[in-house]
Amino acid sequence: MPSTTRPMLETYPKSINLDRAKLAAAVDALNDCAQACTACADACLSEDMVAELTKCIRTNLDCADICATTARVLSRHTGYDATISRTLLEACATACRSCGDECAAHADKHEHCRICADACRACEQACRDLLATIS
Amino acid sequence: MPSTTRPMLETYPKSINLDRAKLAAAVDALNDCAQACTACADACLSEDMVAELTKCIRTNLDCADICATTARVLSRHTGYDATISRTLLEACATACRSCGDECAAHADKHEHCRICADACRACEQACRDLLATIS
Amino acid sequence: MPSTTRPMLETYPKSINLDRAKLAAAVDALNDCAQACTACADACLSEDMVAELTKCIRTNLDCADICATTARVLSRHTGYDATISRTLLEACATACRSCGDECAAHADKHEHCRICADACRACEQACRDLLATIS
Amino acid sequence: MPSTTRPMLETYPKSINLDRAKLAAAVDALNDCAQACTACADACLSEDMVAELTKCIRTNLDCADICATTARVLSRHTGYDATISRTLLEACATACRSCGDECAAHADKHEHCRICADACRACEQACRDLLATIS
Repeated sequence: MPSTTRPMLETYPKSINLDRAKLAAAVDALNDCAQACTACADACLSEDMVAELTKCIRTNLDCADICATTARVLSRHTGYDATISRTLLEACATACRSCGDECAAHADKHEHCRICADACRACEQACRDLLATIS
Repeated sequence: MPSTTRPMLETYPKSINLDRAKLAAAVDALNDCAQACTACADACLSEDMVAELTKCIRTNLDCADICATTARVLSRHTGYDATISRTLLEACATACRSCGDECAAHADKHEHCRICADACRACEQACRDLLATIS
Repeated sequence: MPSTTRPMLETYPKSINLDRAKLAAAVDALNDCAQACTACADACLSEDMVAELTKCIRTNLDCADICATTARVLSRHTGYDATISRTLLEACATACRSCGDECAAHADKHEHCRICADACRACEQACRDLLATIS
Repeated sequence: MPSTTRPMLETYPKSINLDRAKLAAAVDALNDCAQACTACADACLSEDMVAELTKCIRTNLDCADICATTARVLSRHTGYDATISRTLLEACATACRSCGDECAAHADKHEHCRICADACRACEQACRDLLATIS
């Protein structure tokens, strides 16, 4: 099932102040990362060694919340405010970096952490690619 | 970019009490519907005839919030509680029905409403398909 | 600091189809319960016996998400749809019941679970009080 | 009904790296601002002059999402990461500034915008007060 992100962007009735391809890529990466982090937090919670994964769970929860909110803000173009998008993208890239690092530290033991780390890396890159286009 | 939903499900370390294919389909449909509704609310807000779309915007906002929350709840398997999943899926299918009907009423005038109506219909069906498997 | 819920309700420019006192009480209880559940999940995560609290953490996360979404839906009056409000309130009362029960089971060991259980009970009651007024 | 924010902070089982009074004040201001913005967006949607309020609605929706996420992140203390808190607080203060300015521009015509502007100003200040304590 292809994402509706790009078709919805194409049917927005006014102009959009951002590169549509990079914007759609960022929104899709953000939603995917939010989903991976929500699932990884729960998978960690069911590991026998949960006591060693509490920082991972917490960072997953933060990253899921921040990515979901950033996807929403980037999906709105009416009354666009570059300052909000830019500062939020910076916060989101920071959260993805932290969560990717934390998950990567457990990737050899837990496949869900490995997949989640990849989603965080991809999302951080998509955020930075979009940030580079916002003056 | 394929969704991480299914790979994350496959690496969950304990058993899952639901049909994994239907569960993954529902989570993906919920995330896609949430994204479409967020974008449709904003697209409606930028239409010249926004005054005729206020109910559509409101229902889009409700549907986006409810779908996003339902996707999160369904992505957690630790300490599974069938009653929460079932009642939330029922509420979500109801919201998707209402939002799909409302968007469909504007589909001939606004392509974003047409795409969003389709996403709502698909999501309602995915919720009902999953509900049918929860005793 | 008094909540802005009631003042905002009083300045809504059109009619509202629900009892304003019960509505404001429900919204405040929902926001308070969401906050308590978010904090309780994190407090549980930092307990030495976290392995015994994984179901409590999961139910807290569900309850926080569902209460936050229900507060949002109830804070919208434009294009009101009783069916969405009713089914969502039912799902929310169910989640508050489950989370209150789970937290109550740990209340003698963890003060944060005791406070959270109280917030869940108060929220469940506020949801049911409001539900009783929706035909 | 007093907020559960402070009692929950007091029962967190490990140390907290932030000033508890400023932290609780920020969380309460964030939740209150999120609630005011959600309600203001909906109230604007029901004004006859909705076409002149579309930027206000959009900024309200952004501010509600960002404040709600910031309140959640600040309510977690396990595995604390100052970088995430700081960048997110900066993004949140930015969003509150924008939304406060936008609502203030409509405050003489719409009482809900006036109340919401006040909530945004108070929240921006609470975020900056907390930021000042994070090295």
